[in-house]
Amino acid sequence: MNRPDKKVNLNADMGESFGAWNMGDDAALLDIVASANIACGFHAGDPLVMRRTLKLARERGVSIGAHPAYPDLQGFGRRPMTMAPAELEAAVIYQIGALAGLATAEGTHVSHVKPHGALNNTACVDSEVARSVCRAILAVDRQLILLAPALSRLAEAGREAGLTVVEEVFADRAYLDNGQLVPRQRSDAMIHGAAAAFNHVRRMLEESAIVSVNGKRLPTQVESICVHGDGADAVAIARHLKQGLSEIGYAVVTIPALRNKF
Amino acid sequence: MNRPDKKVNLNADMGESFGAWNMGDDAALLDIVASANIACGFHAGDPLVMRRTLKLARERGVSIGAHPAYPDLQGFGRRPMTMAPAELEAAVIYQIGALAGLATAEGTHVSHVKPHGALNNTACVDSEVARSVCRAILAVDRQLILLAPALSRLAEAGREAGLTVVEEVFADRAYLDNGQLVPRQRSDAMIHGAAAAFNHVRRMLEESAIVSVNGKRLPTQVESICVHGDGADAVAIARHLKQGLSEIGYAVVTIPALRNKF
Amino acid sequence: MNRPDKKVNLNADMGESFGAWNMGDDAALLDIVASANIACGFHAGDPLVMRRTLKLARERGVSIGAHPAYPDLQGFGRRPMTMAPAELEAAVIYQIGALAGLATAEGTHVSHVKPHGALNNTACVDSEVARSVCRAILAVDRQLILLAPALSRLAEAGREAGLTVVEEVFADRAYLDNGQLVPRQRSDAMIHGAAAAFNHVRRMLEESAIVSVNGKRLPTQVESICVHGDGADAVAIARHLKQGLSEIGYAVVTIPALRNKF
Amino acid sequence: MNRPDKKVNLNADMGESFGAWNMGDDAALLDIVASANIACGFHAGDPLVMRRTLKLARERGVSIGAHPAYPDLQGFGRRPMTMAPAELEAAVIYQIGALAGLATAEGTHVSHVKPHGALNNTACVDSEVARSVCRAILAVDRQLILLAPALSRLAEAGREAGLTVVEEVFADRAYLDNGQLVPRQRSDAMIHGAAAAFNHVRRMLEESAIVSVNGKRLPTQVESICVHGDGADAVAIARHLKQGLSEIGYAVVTIPALRNKF
Repeated sequence: MNRPDKKVNLNADMGESFGAWNMGDDAALLDIVASANIACGFHAGDPLVMRRTLKLARERGVSIGAHPAYPDLQGFGRRPMTMAPAELEAAVIYQIGALAGLATAEGTHVSHVKPHGALNNTACVDSEVARSVCRAILAVDRQLILLAPALSRLAEAGREAGLTVVEEVFADRAYLDNGQLVPRQRSDAMIHGAAAAFNHVRRMLEESAIVSVNGKRLPTQVESICVHGDGADAVAIARHLKQGLSEIGYAVVTIPALRNKF
Repeated sequence: MNRPDKKVNLNADMGESFGAWNMGDDAALLDIVASANIACGFHAGDPLVMRRTLKLARERGVSIGAHPAYPDLQGFGRRPMTMAPAELEAAVIYQIGALAGLATAEGTHVSHVKPHGALNNTACVDSEVARSVCRAILAVDRQLILLAPALSRLAEAGREAGLTVVEEVFADRAYLDNGQLVPRQRSDAMIHGAAAAFNHVRRMLEESAIVSVNGKRLPTQVESICVHGDGADAVAIARHLKQGLSEIGYAVVTIPALRNKF
Repeated sequence: MNRPDKKVNLNADMGESFGAWNMGDDAALLDIVASANIACGFHAGDPLVMRRTLKLARERGVSIGAHPAYPDLQGFGRRPMTMAPAELEAAVIYQIGALAGLATAEGTHVSHVKPHGALNNTACVDSEVARSVCRAILAVDRQLILLAPALSRLAEAGREAGLTVVEEVFADRAYLDNGQLVPRQRSDAMIHGAAAAFNHVRRMLEESAIVSVNGKRLPTQVESICVHGDGADAVAIARHLKQGLSEIGYAVVTIPALRNKF
Repeated sequence: MNRPDKKVNLNADMGESFGAWNMGDDAALLDIVASANIACGFHAGDPLVMRRTLKLARERGVSIGAHPAYPDLQGFGRRPMTMAPAELEAAVIYQIGALAGLATAEGTHVSHVKPHGALNNTACVDSEVARSVCRAILAVDRQLILLAPALSRLAEAGREAGLTVVEEVFADRAYLDNGQLVPRQRSDAMIHGAAAAFNHVRRMLEESAIVSVNGKRLPTQVESICVHGDGADAVAIARHLKQGLSEIGYAVVTIPALRNKF
């Protein structure tokens, strides 16, 4: 194994249990990823779940992101909703603040923000929603890093707003020629298996580009890779990916460390 | 009018609207009181209401307190609930953090915490609940001042935890010999009218004591007076009280200013 | 005054208080209208508010409709949401059933259904959503009458599904050439004042048509008129309207009575 | 195996998933029990989960009960709450009505009611709460059977109210001399393993009594046995219990069938 001379981040959504209901194997995933996007109570994650997830992340040196969502527990934040800009902005600030309070209580801090589910999807294609999210982040703490899908309106709005933006790609999802994800209902939406996921990621890293299902090359800086914790072998795939990245000379680092912030 | 040489605080609960539903005349009350206890979304106050209330308070130089509650919108936080200590502690931190995030966004900050409704009532008589609230406050920011009813277990727990504690009395409520409020169902529970409320407060200030319905004197430092914004002439009573306090030489100051913190 | 030989219904939304928050003057409005659309807990109306509203309606002989909404208390059901058809259908059944249970407890019954807010707006233009609502109604009780805006996809879907459909017009809203409401942001959206509202309604009744702001005549059976309880003089306008209808020979009857069902 | 000449019911709580969160193996348990207590949305069970659970129950001939709870998703209805009698009564009616609406939509009906969690526990020892629950049931449908823990205030209140009451015992819980469950924190609270659970149940059936941990015999009609679906081998224990009951001459029947209602 070479001494790592290149840096990449692995991130995953976390803390999505709620009350008596468990979701995901956070403990296993926290041993693999370097950054955690923690649910803030609107789509998942009650205060106690949030606090426990923060503690687990801190103990492993995993950097912490707020994962704000539409107010929709029943729909797990996956149902598109229309909120007025001021309403959305306040809702995002509220969630970041709540997580930040709990992070302080656990001796750690929030260093990035990544919107969840339908809010993220909408912010990727709707600049007004993207700008509301960015205004919210700036209003709480302009040092917060925005973690946004590569080539999205959200990433663009973040840069325009003066935020530090880290762009992510998905290890297990194929892309369209316009840089968006292949919709889940299509048979070629998912990248199946650990080997294919690693090759998918490796190619994007080597080409500094998203490569679409049709082979189109969409240049973008690939700094962070999103992995998932649900599904039968998700954790195994994430572990394989991390091992593979190490073998080709990548150090897996936190989101702040990508930018030499700690 | 003498030059004010004594200090007292007037505080009121605020920001208890929710979505399409309005409650209270916050704007009128904010012109009178020096400190606002702002609902944090669990019993009232959605994120946008919270932000608007913070803005109004900041514009008037009114100091800001978090007003955390049990998670109970339908019951307005007035229904006693049993929460495990860790659960309650996390819920209180969450609410303080959420308000603090919105306060930062509005260029201000949270300087005190006062529990709401059933949570406050329980914390006044149940030391375990009181300690959970105090641990939550300490965990977020040990500079936060606890605003607690005079002679309560909550005030006691706050001092034991090393918090700065400011004790409040109620302008419109009579007291039992044990320092607790006369229950609302009793005919002598309420102090009616502006003149009676002022005399009630004046006596407590002059005697540095709560004086019960039976004339029993319970020594306590009276630093803050809680007024209410609901009811037909609540705002008029609060205005009269403030005027009366000024005439007897009291400056109405914020909660941090009581302790020379700003 | 002539002996009334024609029938028309007046309906209004009701029971939109929640917990400690009041909304509207239901008691006043219930003395005027013949049918009440009662909130079912998803956008407003907790179980106790629902029960009290049912009691008031029953005492006045006002017929009862379920007023189901998206699950969105904070947004008062006014925020568009995307729900899967099966999810929406179950949510509508749930709300109708809940109100029906409380109606039985109050010795009355639900005789119609009218969707609320964003759900109604979407069902008026989106046939798939309209069909989900209709399937829900049929599944609970095929005797339930659908109260839908005149000329809407919802009314159309109701007829296709075999439901009894009563179409309503708004006393205080102007119409576009396509039969939809003039958007609220336009200066000519609202019909102002009691006299104008009565003339607006009278013309629609006489012409058996909606007459648009441009004078276009859109034939439709006008059987029910929706009035509102919020706003400074809403109740006065509703009272004036009812009086005027009586003077031109209309009996104001319940929705079931329009179809000789009781 | 003898021809069954005695009847007993097996019941279990069901439909306690919510949105994206799953709980329990309802399908497996529905193949064993004869009656299902279905969550009604207040502690678990969104409308779609309710509908799916109703469908599964109907397909297997399992009789249906409403399982109403305090409004407390985060606490899974396990946190004691204080609700005013009228408020609680309306909340229980609302939940029964909602389930009844969905049951109608699935071509079946609700035949019993069993309160959940903290509401059940409180109703077992607090006659006022028990009476509120009973009034709610009577108000919706006096044919509904109350399923209540044996020897509880709830069972007593049900009989006083004129309801048909079926009393249940727990296969996996030990009893105190007063007929209440041994608190979970005690080491002897649980009956461990399939053989012990069957012997526990068998003895109660044979003696027509609860037999406490101290050997005290508390006569009661044992008609229904509650089994659980959570825990590693809960389903296996339930299956063993059913097999054992069959071998000693019991037919496992639905709750209505216990009383020859269908």
